[in-house]
Amino acid sequence: MNPERLTELLDAVRDGRLAVADALERLRDLPFEDLGFALVDHHRSLRKGFPEVIYCAGKTPEQVEQIARRLVANGELVLATRADEATATALQQAFSDQPFAHNPRARTVVIGEIKTRPECATVLVVAAGTSDMPVAEEAAVTASCLGCPVETLIDVGVAGLHRLLHYREQLDRAGAIVVVAGLEGALPSVVGGLVRGPVVAVPTSVGYGASFGGLSALLAMLNSCAPGVTVVNIDNGFGAGSAAALIAASAGRGR
Amino acid sequence: MNPERLTELLDAVRDGRLAVADALERLRDLPFEDLGFALVDHHRSLRKGFPEVIYCAGKTPEQVEQIARRLVANGELVLATRADEATATALQQAFSDQPFAHNPRARTVVIGEIKTRPECATVLVVAAGTSDMPVAEEAAVTASCLGCPVETLIDVGVAGLHRLLHYREQLDRAGAIVVVAGLEGALPSVVGGLVRGPVVAVPTSVGYGASFGGLSALLAMLNSCAPGVTVVNIDNGFGAGSAAALIAASAGRGR
Amino acid sequence: MNPERLTELLDAVRDGRLAVADALERLRDLPFEDLGFALVDHHRSLRKGFPEVIYCAGKTPEQVEQIARRLVANGELVLATRADEATATALQQAFSDQPFAHNPRARTVVIGEIKTRPECATVLVVAAGTSDMPVAEEAAVTASCLGCPVETLIDVGVAGLHRLLHYREQLDRAGAIVVVAGLEGALPSVVGGLVRGPVVAVPTSVGYGASFGGLSALLAMLNSCAPGVTVVNIDNGFGAGSAAALIAASAGRGR
Amino acid sequence: MNPERLTELLDAVRDGRLAVADALERLRDLPFEDLGFALVDHHRSLRKGFPEVIYCAGKTPEQVEQIARRLVANGELVLATRADEATATALQQAFSDQPFAHNPRARTVVIGEIKTRPECATVLVVAAGTSDMPVAEEAAVTASCLGCPVETLIDVGVAGLHRLLHYREQLDRAGAIVVVAGLEGALPSVVGGLVRGPVVAVPTSVGYGASFGGLSALLAMLNSCAPGVTVVNIDNGFGAGSAAALIAASAGRGR
Amino acid sequence: MNPERLTELLDAVRDGRLAVADALERLRDLPFEDLGFALVDHHRSLRKGFPEVIYCAGKTPEQVEQIARRLVANGELVLATRADEATATALQQAFSDQPFAHNPRARTVVIGEIKTRPECATVLVVAAGTSDMPVAEEAAVTASCLGCPVETLIDVGVAGLHRLLHYREQLDRAGAIVVVAGLEGALPSVVGGLVRGPVVAVPTSVGYGASFGGLSALLAMLNSCAPGVTVVNIDNGFGAGSAAALIAASAGRGR
Amino acid sequence: MNPERLTELLDAVRDGRLAVADALERLRDLPFEDLGFALVDHHRSLRKGFPEVIYCAGKTPEQVEQIARRLVANGELVLATRADEATATALQQAFSDQPFAHNPRARTVVIGEIKTRPECATVLVVAAGTSDMPVAEEAAVTASCLGCPVETLIDVGVAGLHRLLHYREQLDRAGAIVVVAGLEGALPSVVGGLVRGPVVAVPTSVGYGASFGGLSALLAMLNSCAPGVTVVNIDNGFGAGSAAALIAASAGRGR
Amino acid sequence: MNPERLTELLDAVRDGRLAVADALERLRDLPFEDLGFALVDHHRSLRKGFPEVIYCAGKTPEQVEQIARRLVANGELVLATRADEATATALQQAFSDQPFAHNPRARTVVIGEIKTRPECATVLVVAAGTSDMPVAEEAAVTASCLGCPVETLIDVGVAGLHRLLHYREQLDRAGAIVVVAGLEGALPSVVGGLVRGPVVAVPTSVGYGASFGGLSALLAMLNSCAPGVTVVNIDNGFGAGSAAALIAASAGRGR
Amino acid sequence: MNPERLTELLDAVRDGRLAVADALERLRDLPFEDLGFALVDHHRSLRKGFPEVIYCAGKTPEQVEQIARRLVANGELVLATRADEATATALQQAFSDQPFAHNPRARTVVIGEIKTRPECATVLVVAAGTSDMPVAEEAAVTASCLGCPVETLIDVGVAGLHRLLHYREQLDRAGAIVVVAGLEGALPSVVGGLVRGPVVAVPTSVGYGASFGGLSALLAMLNSCAPGVTVVNIDNGFGAGSAAALIAASAGRGR
Repeated sequence: MNPERLTELLDAVRDGRLAVADALERLRDLPFEDLGFALVDHHRSLRKGFPEVIYCAGKTPEQVEQIARRLVANGELVLATRADEATATALQQAFSDQPFAHNPRARTVVIGEIKTRPECATVLVVAAGTSDMPVAEEAAVTASCLGCPVETLIDVGVAGLHRLLHYREQLDRAGAIVVVAGLEGALPSVVGGLVRGPVVAVPTSVGYGASFGGLSALLAMLNSCAPGVTVVNIDNGFGAGSAAALIAASAGRGR
Repeated sequence: MNPERLTELLDAVRDGRLAVADALERLRDLPFEDLGFALVDHHRSLRKGFPEVIYCAGKTPEQVEQIARRLVANGELVLATRADEATATALQQAFSDQPFAHNPRARTVVIGEIKTRPECATVLVVAAGTSDMPVAEEAAVTASCLGCPVETLIDVGVAGLHRLLHYREQLDRAGAIVVVAGLEGALPSVVGGLVRGPVVAVPTSVGYGASFGGLSALLAMLNSCAPGVTVVNIDNGFGAGSAAALIAASAGRGR
Repeated sequence: MNPERLTELLDAVRDGRLAVADALERLRDLPFEDLGFALVDHHRSLRKGFPEVIYCAGKTPEQVEQIARRLVANGELVLATRADEATATALQQAFSDQPFAHNPRARTVVIGEIKTRPECATVLVVAAGTSDMPVAEEAAVTASCLGCPVETLIDVGVAGLHRLLHYREQLDRAGAIVVVAGLEGALPSVVGGLVRGPVVAVPTSVGYGASFGGLSALLAMLNSCAPGVTVVNIDNGFGAGSAAALIAASAGRGR
Repeated sequence: MNPERLTELLDAVRDGRLAVADALERLRDLPFEDLGFALVDHHRSLRKGFPEVIYCAGKTPEQVEQIARRLVANGELVLATRADEATATALQQAFSDQPFAHNPRARTVVIGEIKTRPECATVLVVAAGTSDMPVAEEAAVTASCLGCPVETLIDVGVAGLHRLLHYREQLDRAGAIVVVAGLEGALPSVVGGLVRGPVVAVPTSVGYGASFGGLSALLAMLNSCAPGVTVVNIDNGFGAGSAAALIAASAGRGR
Repeated sequence: MNPERLTELLDAVRDGRLAVADALERLRDLPFEDLGFALVDHHRSLRKGFPEVIYCAGKTPEQVEQIARRLVANGELVLATRADEATATALQQAFSDQPFAHNPRARTVVIGEIKTRPECATVLVVAAGTSDMPVAEEAAVTASCLGCPVETLIDVGVAGLHRLLHYREQLDRAGAIVVVAGLEGALPSVVGGLVRGPVVAVPTSVGYGASFGGLSALLAMLNSCAPGVTVVNIDNGFGAGSAAALIAASAGRGR
Repeated sequence: MNPERLTELLDAVRDGRLAVADALERLRDLPFEDLGFALVDHHRSLRKGFPEVIYCAGKTPEQVEQIARRLVANGELVLATRADEATATALQQAFSDQPFAHNPRARTVVIGEIKTRPECATVLVVAAGTSDMPVAEEAAVTASCLGCPVETLIDVGVAGLHRLLHYREQLDRAGAIVVVAGLEGALPSVVGGLVRGPVVAVPTSVGYGASFGGLSALLAMLNSCAPGVTVVNIDNGFGAGSAAALIAASAGRGR
Repeated sequence: MNPERLTELLDAVRDGRLAVADALERLRDLPFEDLGFALVDHHRSLRKGFPEVIYCAGKTPEQVEQIARRLVANGELVLATRADEATATALQQAFSDQPFAHNPRARTVVIGEIKTRPECATVLVVAAGTSDMPVAEEAAVTASCLGCPVETLIDVGVAGLHRLLHYREQLDRAGAIVVVAGLEGALPSVVGGLVRGPVVAVPTSVGYGASFGGLSALLAMLNSCAPGVTVVNIDNGFGAGSAAALIAASAGRGR
Repeated sequence: MNPERLTELLDAVRDGRLAVADALERLRDLPFEDLGFALVDHHRSLRKGFPEVIYCAGKTPEQVEQIARRLVANGELVLATRADEATATALQQAFSDQPFAHNPRARTVVIGEIKTRPECATVLVVAAGTSDMPVAEEAAVTASCLGCPVETLIDVGVAGLHRLLHYREQLDRAGAIVVVAGLEGALPSVVGGLVRGPVVAVPTSVGYGASFGGLSALLAMLNSCAPGVTVVNIDNGFGAGSAAALIAASAGRGR
């Protein structure tokens, strides 16, 4: 569907180098591969500048391993999210000859070598409390897989503002900020009011009772009075990390 | 049911000054008065140290006026809340000979003279934004009707923290603080983390979309990570003002 | 709180040019101004690179006008959002000597001259249907107030994908994309799967029944399976426009 | 209640071939059978053209087995849904002499021989992701039990549209399409915009956080902007498969 | 994207009858037309066998009229739904020379001549109560615009079952049944248990209190224990009518 | 369907007094009457011992009047609920020759003479506050239409328990008690703990904010810790009145 | 608080047989007993005509046993609800010398002899499906503990109406009917439309997905269009059984 | 940020005793300590008059222990809430040389000696039922850690009011009252109507079905008609205990 390839193909038809039927076939032959239970999309990394990501929840370790094999065979960096212990172990055994990093708290597995891209600005991941660390680390791992330098700041919740204010300079320097918070989800509003750049807010399911599994924090973040704050799903460290990296990638281009 | 009155009554029965049937009758004759559509309770001010409050929503101006007449006739201070224009006008005409204060923004009417009680500490009412003023003023009027000195602080929301921090001393001095906020409802957590005393949080319906009529702010406040924060219903300035005044009344006793 | 100013102030104290009491006072004298009902914050434009924004809902035309006067007097570009007809008229009369733009569909008023900043990439605003236009235009006006060139694409919903695919090149070129959709809110996922850059999704309250005032679209967007998609509040064109402009501003720096 | 049988019965009464009391009894003697804990309805297959279905959740393996025995004894095809391992094992042992098919992922057991009905068009089951397979397979097994040829298409979610577009011809050929999706539930809208026939959408509980157990996908599907899309309960593969088969049965009659 | 047209185009390129650049252009030139605020899709009627439908909510009468003009100019049957009085009047004046039908209760306008297609089976629209009539009539008008004969049955709710049972024969004869109900939404389950064909259920917002704007009926219908029942959005008569017509169109082919 | 009538009919067939075709017809000829928009059910009063009730919401005054005419012509007592002013006026004019009672607060109209049935015990309607009176009066009117003596008790909410305790004897004497309350909905639990007989609880939409239109009171009543308490829909005075009257009717039989 | 006892007490005071202080004390000495963790209320059976009920959820087997001992020692019939296996076993061992009945499906334990009261009419418990049996049996056990004869009818859901209609006579004969249903909760409306007496509806949590733990059935029952239907909490067989027994007790008095 | 310390620091700068760079550094050096995963805040006890509290949910026993070590080393009283068995055991082993109290029902651990402060009034904790005890005890432990004398009252729910009324004197004497209730959450309204002082209400998740995990009780308490009642999160015994202690501390000052 890319204009250059289409021009090239039409040129070949015009010049008689390619039969019409073959051209038709080629137009149809989109670049994905069928595993029976999953269509592996080798071109997404081209389309989105992304590593290949396998969301492991609801897949068996065997399914995850098979998808990973195809991707690794293609030379791509693989990030597996929501990987439980069984899946992580299966992958470790399968890819013992590859660079391999398992973060059990973040439930991530990275297969292949992460390369920091020089054009990327820093992604700063800020977490309100110690209990928010799993989500914060999923965001950090994701952003680093996309080539961004990553820094983290933990336990700077709004009930002790002086802790946050202590780090204002670091906040101001970041190309994109991920703010992770459960309970009342107030931290993104406060951070958004302090800094100049965009803030990606991640509500977490940390809390009980009227936190309703993170709904409280989610609603608070959506209603943030600070401009420049956008929100992802509850506990979605991956989504926040990837959005922040996309922002930081462009932010860094100009530096 | 009050032990002293009961003892007195039993003494009278013992001494033959009171017939058993009359005693029985008197025990039943509880101190309220029947208006047909409302049982006016003359003893609540004794029981709770409260002025008489008429919640006007769902009552006709005539009903409100009749209830007010009975209370005023009894010499009590009357506070009418959620009073629309028609009700306020009806009351103004009916009580032209009384001290009368109508706050149209707060939708309150006060009939009678407000007296500040010396034993009460100051109630400080803090509002996140200009749009929260009607609720904040309902809280302020209510607290002053209960005898407390009242101060207010408007437009000190979390997206510009320096404004709030500017007033730290005033925050620390208050006997009880009412914090009024809509949207993400983050202000009570921030205030609760700064001050020593109890904070009564009032979510408001200010906002749109995922504020869901104040639900967002309500949930945030219930999940506040700052200890000492309690919450009242959405837009319930009256509830917050009365709770804060009860707290400040006792807080001030020791000064 | 800015380190340079603080150093300067401490230098003055050390050199005896400034009395301690005055220094104390100055440290306290934060740069906002008290109007009684609103604390006007002259330094936010410095802090956030933002024009001054007045959220008009819940404020009287008089209050909006007074706030605007202070800001205009300070030489700032003013953006008023959620401005009803009465407010727009009051502002038009008050600022007849200023560049003035009222968009009644978007309910925005802009006072002052919008200047496009050369370092900003284009913000592309995409709307699923004609009924989503008010929100889309609020986003477009906001992004242009922040200095970004803005393009729009209307009525390219997912039930007729060929319309969207027609514009793929334009989608790929944008520095940041705002996607506005009501009903099932599927468009951001589709756009997010097609493009390389970050997507800011805005659910709208367009729909009825089980759209529950935009809840349906909001949830769909939060659950988007396309990475790089972040979400703002229902009908929050302002929030989406400002976030996209912050992203596009950094994206453009490198070009 | 069927007019012909009623006429016949009344004729018999008129002709004295049937006593009034017997007629009364026969009118009452409806065609179901009492097992104590379940009224087995032998005539439903007549009424609805359906195999007998046993919904196993909340029933003990023994109860399921007893119901199945009665149905099998009557020569009917039996489909058990939501059958856990214990129930499947109990049935396998009980009906070792019957054609028997257990799909553990779909949690279905089929006892008896499935016969494809020539008048049925194909039911196409489309699933957005690998994690949606259990629900998709329950739909496929159900539709095949009702006599329809069934095809499936897995992992063609909206974040990679080219995968879906690759299969357009197959989509157009189907007599009825079941679309299974979790997360943002956008796939039915996209499919509904591409094809001519009716689409039965099944939301799944795949997701986390703001997917709220499938609510997000459910609401999105109910708000679909594509006409011809109808919806069944979350994870209700059985409901979707049976509705699609009823549609395909009539669709095929004309071919 | 249609294979035949693509073959033809490629043939022309091969034969030198079409320049590559022109072919490229033509591939891009998808069959829709840009009105600025709406992309009119002339090919949908081909793609879906549908009349053109204009959803009027959120559009001005002028916008609706302009869209309608383009469609009528193309010779298509136009169905406008959710048309208020102003829109209906504007359309009536604009198309005084066309067959025109306005149903104010259903809020529909039909421009052009409805033709019943002989291959369509009857769509039967059943409504639980008199208050459900607007939604039922929207379904009926829609189904007739798609070429189906339509019958209606009003006020046969479950609290008086004998009324419904009276019409069993008519229920059994229909090619597709739309069941419209508010309150407890029980009617589709009862109808679904009686008939052989598919049932499209429409919850309505008729009710108060815990009907929560139709949520009660919606949930009940989604949980229907009768197989073959699918559901559309609350008050979505259009969606039900179009789905039923698609089903009845195929159902009728075989007769 | 009644056995006696069926026996009689079968006897007539047997004896040749009734032709089979006529018998068939008669079996079909159920006792309701078709008005086009409403099936008037003349036998419900027989089936349920009820007056005929017309729920006016969503019906035009003309529709209500036509239904009422048929019922009055049949000599039945007619109760119209949720009747707005226009409907009440239309009915008053139409039935000026009949006993007629319009209660504008309860929005009820009664046409015909109410007769108290001697076998009915008293229904006591208790309301927590003055604002709950419209719902309480709808319950009272309904119960009296079913032939029960009715007493009422207004403004005895739980924040002043002594008022309620004053009326314990009256509470104990009632055959059935309807308890009407909004806000926190606590009154039915308290009454249910005091009395011996069944309590029908009616939540009202009185309140604001987190009362969520009566949801708060509804949930409280459903969770009542007092046995013997059952609940009807929010603001459903009619439902409570009719259920209480059914209970009181049987309760009174034994006196 | 009982007038006779009060008169007697006052007589004793008047006659000098009782000192004032002792009278005061006695007035305070209410008839309950303090176990430290539970106040056992020996007079409830007098007040409500009830057996003593112990709700076991959230209590340890030891706590339940201690409460039961006090009650049994007082000669009362004891009903324990929500008793898990551990609690049932503990009670069985503790009261091996008492009449003892444990229903594991209903999770009830009854200690003491159940006596049917001749003045009670029959309570009929109707359940839509086999999965609703635990709740139905809890209702049946409860009603029998209150002295009512109980009948049950299982698996007569609305998707096969002929099964329910078969039992019409039994339905009409009952003094009170409990209708238990999950999923769409339609059965109470259908039963309520058939019978003359009051119906107590119990929603169950049977279902999945959009049944939301019984919410779907609960809302449907609250919105029932059949008069005389009242509702209790989800899965609250105890509440339904006790309310039905209170009704049947009075219903039977007159027979 | 404390004015005195700031003055002192500025004096030192002025007098040349402190270099500007050092002053700058010191202003930044806020009093918290970085553990990598938690910023331990040694000054909170100063700021809020609080013991140090560790919320254990979502933290490993090791993390809790490390935080506790720092605090104990600083001589502070430590309260750990939501401590499971593993955490409690780890703490017990780590601090075997300290005063140590573990309450397994309340899930609290206290390390260090609790000292009652003479200026504190009594906090009275009232629980509706035995099942509410864990939450009530968390409140009691918390309030005692803050230095207040604590009394408790268990099993005084509203369905047996005489039990509560028995303790009126004790209720009136308390400086602050915590009321803990699940189910319908009515107790705070009743207590709030009886006493003079402020009431902190705690909804619990005790209940099932429509209690929705405590939502029912929460909403009831927020809608309380008794003034002076404020609310904390579901099951938040800690929040209620700390708020009540803050109130009682000031209440007691005056005694």
